[in-house]
Amino acid sequence: MQIAQSVAASRALATGLFDTLRRDSLDAPGVTRDPYGPGEQRAHATIEQAARDLGLEIARDAAANLYMTWPGRDRAAKRVVIGSHLDSVPHGGNFDGAAGVIAGLVAVDALKRQGLAPACDLTVMAIRAEESVWFEVSYIGSRGALGTLPDGAMEALRRDTRRPLSAHIAECGGNPDALRAGARHLDPASLRAYLEVHIEQAPSLVEADRPVAICTGIPGNFRFPAARIEGAYDHVGLPRRFRRDAALAGAEFFVALDRVWEEYDARGIPMACTIGRFHTDADAHGMTIIPGEFRFSLDVRAYDAAVLAELERRVDAIIAEIEQRRRVRFDIGARARAAVGKVDPSIAAALTAGAETLGIPVLQLGSPASHDAAAFAACGVPMGMLFVRNRNGSHNPREAMEIKDFLAATTLLTWWLAEECCR
Amino acid sequence: MQIAQSVAASRALATGLFDTLRRDSLDAPGVTRDPYGPGEQRAHATIEQAARDLGLEIARDAAANLYMTWPGRDRAAKRVVIGSHLDSVPHGGNFDGAAGVIAGLVAVDALKRQGLAPACDLTVMAIRAEESVWFEVSYIGSRGALGTLPDGAMEALRRDTRRPLSAHIAECGGNPDALRAGARHLDPASLRAYLEVHIEQAPSLVEADRPVAICTGIPGNFRFPAARIEGAYDHVGLPRRFRRDAALAGAEFFVALDRVWEEYDARGIPMACTIGRFHTDADAHGMTIIPGEFRFSLDVRAYDAAVLAELERRVDAIIAEIEQRRRVRFDIGARARAAVGKVDPSIAAALTAGAETLGIPVLQLGSPASHDAAAFAACGVPMGMLFVRNRNGSHNPREAMEIKDFLAATTLLTWWLAEECCR
Repeated sequence: MQIAQSVAASRALATGLFDTLRRDSLDAPGVTRDPYGPGEQRAHATIEQAARDLGLEIARDAAANLYMTWPGRDRAAKRVVIGSHLDSVPHGGNFDGAAGVIAGLVAVDALKRQGLAPACDLTVMAIRAEESVWFEVSYIGSRGALGTLPDGAMEALRRDTRRPLSAHIAECGGNPDALRAGARHLDPASLRAYLEVHIEQAPSLVEADRPVAICTGIPGNFRFPAARIEGAYDHVGLPRRFRRDAALAGAEFFVALDRVWEEYDARGIPMACTIGRFHTDADAHGMTIIPGEFRFSLDVRAYDAAVLAELERRVDAIIAEIEQRRRVRFDIGARARAAVGKVDPSIAAALTAGAETLGIPVLQLGSPASHDAAAFAACGVPMGMLFVRNRNGSHNPREAMEIKDFLAATTLLTWWLAEECCR
Repeated sequence: MQIAQSVAASRALATGLFDTLRRDSLDAPGVTRDPYGPGEQRAHATIEQAARDLGLEIARDAAANLYMTWPGRDRAAKRVVIGSHLDSVPHGGNFDGAAGVIAGLVAVDALKRQGLAPACDLTVMAIRAEESVWFEVSYIGSRGALGTLPDGAMEALRRDTRRPLSAHIAECGGNPDALRAGARHLDPASLRAYLEVHIEQAPSLVEADRPVAICTGIPGNFRFPAARIEGAYDHVGLPRRFRRDAALAGAEFFVALDRVWEEYDARGIPMACTIGRFHTDADAHGMTIIPGEFRFSLDVRAYDAAVLAELERRVDAIIAEIEQRRRVRFDIGARARAAVGKVDPSIAAALTAGAETLGIPVLQLGSPASHDAAAFAACGVPMGMLFVRNRNGSHNPREAMEIKDFLAATTLLTWWLAEECCR
C-alpha cells in the first residue's frame, strides 16, 4: 500500500474529528475555542480520546498542553514532535490550529496501517493558547512547554473574562507557579525535530493553484499592543491651525506605514503591517468633538531580524515626525517582540524531495503568520512546517480548507515520518 | 451713567448666575447640562428665577424653551429676541451657551438701571438642546420654536439614555405632538431681530488680542452622522495585495480630507472638516485581526452654499476612489445638512459702529461653529452675533472666558438695544 492510500484510508478519522470539534465549538458565525476555557477544553477532550483509541501514551505539562506519544524502539533517542494548537480566535474557523493536531493523529494511524513503527518516540502535541488575541501573549502553550514564557505572562488578562492567565491555567489542571519558575516539560536538546501542519492564512496557494506549501520561514515581529495618541479635545469649529487632532495623527500614521509596506513590497522584501485596533474613545467621542485621544495596536512582521530592526526605526521616525507636526504625543506603551522562526534547511529539503517523489505540487512559501513552530525554532529545535491551501484567509468563519488538500499535506508529513523516523 | 458703567454694575448678577449654573452641573472634569434632562432643567430653573427677579414675563413653548420678556411700549410691534442655549456637551465648559442667556439678562438689568424702556417687546430666550452631540439633530430648541424641525426629529435617541427626543421633551413639560405637527411659537414675521452672544470656540480672538468679535456668518454644513466602511476581516499575516482593510480605508479618507482642507486654507476659503468618531468595532477588533469594518462620523462646514456643494462633490469623489482601489464599500447612511446662516448687514454695521463709539476693539469673524442664530437666519429673521474671547476652545472643561471680556460684549449688546429698541 502506498503512503497516500494509507492516509486516504484515515479520511474518516480526520473528518470525524473535524466535525466533532466544530459541533462542540459552534458560536455563530464560526467557532470559538477559547484558550484555557470551555471551548479549548472540549477540543482537548475529543483529541485525547482519539489518541487513546490509537493506543498513544497521554501526558500533560504545567501549561496543560497535551502530549500523545507513540513510543519508539529507542525511548532514550531524541524524539520528534508533531504539533499545533486547538484554540481559535472568537468566531474563527474550524481548521486554524486543529488541522495540525489532526494531521499528527492521521499520520500515526496511517503509519500503523503501513505496518511501520518509529525508531524514536513520536509525539503528537496539542498546544494551548496560541491565538494571542485572547491574552495578548504569543505562543503561551509552546513557550510554557519550553520554559521560555516572558516575565509577567501569568498576570496577562483574557480580553473577555478579565481574569489572569494563571487562574485560567490552574482551572484547566495546569500549574502556573511552575511556569512562573520557568519549569519546562520539553528540553530542546531532547528533540530531534518539530513539525507543524497548518492551514495557510492567506490565499497564496489558491492564487498559485497548489494544494500544499513548504514553509521557508516564520516572521518575527514587534508589537505595540496598546498604544495611545494624546492630542486635545476641541470644538468642531476650531480652525485647522489650532487643532491637535489625535485621530488624524493616527490616520496619518497608518497611511505612512502602508506606504512603507508598499515600498518594501516593491523591493521584494516580505513583511506585513497590521493595525487591528484603531479607535477614538467611545465614552468621549462625538460628531462635533475633535478627538483628543486615539488608541491603536500595531503588529509589524518580517522574516529577517535586520529588516525588523530597520522597520522599527522607520516606525519610530514616522511617529516623531507626526508628533512634531501635529503637536500630539504618542504613548506607545509596552513593546512586545517575537524572534524570527528559522526553518531547518534539511527538513525543508527533505519535504521538497518528498513532494517530488509523491507527485504533490508544492509552493515554497514564507509563513504569513506566526506559529508555535517559531517558539521551537527559537530554542534551537530543528523545525519545519507545511501549509494547506485555504480560501478566504483564517481568523474568520469563512475559512475553506478542502479535505483533499489536508490529506495531501498529511501524506507528505507521513512520508517524512516514514523516511526519517521509521527506519 | 455710561452704558459700560451700567453693565459693570450688573457684574455680580452675571458671576452669581455663572457660579450657580456651574455648581448645579459639576460633572468632573467640567460640567454636564444634558438637554431635556436634569442638567439642563436645573439651569432653566436658575435662569427663570433670575428673570422673575428682574420682573420679566415668563412663557414656555412646545419645545420647553424659556421666554423671558420685558414688555415693550407697543406690544404689537415686532419684537427683539436675545437668545442662546443652556445645555452643554458632556463634561463641557460652563460658558458655551449660558453666556448668551446671561448676557440677555444683564442687558435688561443694565437698561433698567439706565432708566430706559423698550419700544417693542424684548425677549431673552433660553433655548433647549443646541448641542447636537446628544440627539444628533441640529438646533432642536430654536427650530422647535420656529416650527422648522426636520421629519423624524422626535424619534432621535439621546446617545446616553437611548430614549427618544419626544419622551425627553414630554418629561420637561413640552409637547412633542405639537412639534411633530410643525406648530411654532415664534412667527418669523413677528421678529425684528435675533441677537446672540456666544463664547468664541477657537482662540482667534486670543491670537488677535481683542475681547470681542462681530460675527460675519455662520457656516452651513453637511454631515454623515453614522458612516460605515465594509472591508474584510482577515488574519494579520495576509499579504498586502489581498487585504481589504476597512480601517486603512478610513485612515486614507481622513488624510485625504485634511489635504482638501489644507488646499482651501491656502486659497483663503474658510471651511472646517471634523471626523469626531473614527473607530474599529470594539466587539470584533484585535491586535492580530485585519479590520473588516470601520465606523466614522463627518462634519464639513463652510460659509458659502456653493463651497459646501463643491466640498460634498470632493468628498464623494474621494470615497469612490478609495472604494475602487481598496476594494471596500462606504455606507454613508443618512446625510444631514444645515444651511449657511447669513448675518444681517445692518445689524453687523450697527454693532461695528457701536464698538467704535464705545472704544471696544473688535474683530470681524466668521463663526467657527454652528449656533441657534443660524436657525433664525434660515427663516429670514435679521440676525447678528457677538463672540467673546475664550482661550482653550469649547466643548471641553478648559474653556476660559474672562468676565471682563463677557462684560465688553454685553456692553456692546446693551448699547445696540438702547439705540435700536429703547428710543
